[in-house]
Amino acid sequence: MPSEIPSIRALDAWRSHRRRSATPDPPGADALHEVFQNSTINALLEGVYDGSITYGELRRHGDFGLGTFNALDGEMIAVDGGFYQVKADGIASPVADGQRTPFATVLFFRPTLRRSLTGPLDYEHLQTLVDGLVEGPNLFYAVRVDGRFASVTTRSVPRQEKPYPPLADVAKTQPVFHLEDVGGTLAGFRFPDFARGLNVPGFHLHFLTEDRRAGGHVLDLVLECGEVAIDASASFHLELPTDPIFLHADLGHVPGDELDRAERGK
Amino acid sequence: MPSEIPSIRALDAWRSHRRRSATPDPPGADALHEVFQNSTINALLEGVYDGSITYGELRRHGDFGLGTFNALDGEMIAVDGGFYQVKADGIASPVADGQRTPFATVLFFRPTLRRSLTGPLDYEHLQTLVDGLVEGPNLFYAVRVDGRFASVTTRSVPRQEKPYPPLADVAKTQPVFHLEDVGGTLAGFRFPDFARGLNVPGFHLHFLTEDRRAGGHVLDLVLECGEVAIDASASFHLELPTDPIFLHADLGHVPGDELDRAERGK
Repeated sequence: MPSEIPSIRALDAWRSHRRRSATPDPPGADALHEVFQNSTINALLEGVYDGSITYGELRRHGDFGLGTFNALDGEMIAVDGGFYQVKADGIASPVADGQRTPFATVLFFRPTLRRSLTGPLDYEHLQTLVDGLVEGPNLFYAVRVDGRFASVTTRSVPRQEKPYPPLADVAKTQPVFHLEDVGGTLAGFRFPDFARGLNVPGFHLHFLTEDRRAGGHVLDLVLECGEVAIDASASFHLELPTDPIFLHADLGHVPGDELDRAERGK
Repeated sequence: MPSEIPSIRALDAWRSHRRRSATPDPPGADALHEVFQNSTINALLEGVYDGSITYGELRRHGDFGLGTFNALDGEMIAVDGGFYQVKADGIASPVADGQRTPFATVLFFRPTLRRSLTGPLDYEHLQTLVDGLVEGPNLFYAVRVDGRFASVTTRSVPRQEKPYPPLADVAKTQPVFHLEDVGGTLAGFRFPDFARGLNVPGFHLHFLTEDRRAGGHVLDLVLECGEVAIDASASFHLELPTDPIFLHADLGHVPGDELDRAERGK
């Protein structure tokens, strides 16, 4: 039987518990269920690839999520507190605290809903299924799928040299990997449309193999079986860079086609 | 002589101080310089007017800012920890902690830059002047102007009954007030364009007279003389409602003309 906790009820219960609590909150309690992000997807699309915070700092804000690295040196995926870097060769390795990131989104993953999945399910159907599980499109959802996959198509991005090209240009020559009959974990987010400009609207998932040795940014997949876990969050914290390149970047336009090219391989 | 502290240098100094600090941060230290907002401007445009948090809770996140009230019952302006409600008659009165808000933006105002202003300056020129003072368009800026005004044109909004109409419809019949030769305070924010969908991009200011008895949402003004104070923030916290009306509202579109009609009286 799939276990299921109504996500919003759990969130509201946690909030009222906090309100009723007579003792002061422990440090960091405010960060529970808060999605933390540094910089914006628009900045990444514009080629702002200099890391604005270290992974040591990022770990204070979450044990789960995705992102990239200083100079766009690969894809990051974090699961169960383990942070991994998938470089342009598709190989995953642990991230050191001193490494920096120009864009990452994390939270402390405490799922409010779990559901067994029976495939075959392609990426589009998996997204439709998750859309049917969550309570409306307007919250932030962290999404994790552990399972067995008939195939997963991922990409990574190669380290860039200055002057940095826009992400859509990098994506034109990105290395793509076709993994077959593989166990592993999808980790990422479903962002609301109104947060377009801050993060990828809709689904954005990265993949890590069961042996934690390969992965990347997910372009396509076929799931055979597994479990999806969802953490619904109504809290979002954005921490912007303050370097001159970010401060004066052209971030005002609404990304459409270029986001599809950069993030969805279309 | 106008006093001036380079805003970004101050922000970076504060951040490095926090990083170097050997002792744990006091509760709430993370909230310093953080812009806190509940719900989104898109939700307000769509008629989501049920208050999602109380002013008692809001005060924990700031002593300065703007917003509205449950059922869209007027304009809120907060200055120096005093929260005021300007109802549809244009009269300001103190806000009680138990009142609720569907949309508000606040922070603890600690200006990083001050500058004397000599008029006459209309609203457009005041905005251009502030744009020239801040370090790039991509941070969150809280803006306060204390001064003497040849005129200030404000509006407020009347309390609505369910089913709530969209904000642009309410704005068609909003009461408008023309104040002349008046002292007072402008309080509000300059938001980056990429945050469109969350808050009003560009300037959004409310006004409160020196005697704290009248005010509203600013449509136009002529400043004679005064001082502008600016608090640059790289941190933004969004707290979303979790009621079914918000969860299923259509918030995905990019507000353009309707935002101008609702917020700029155009």
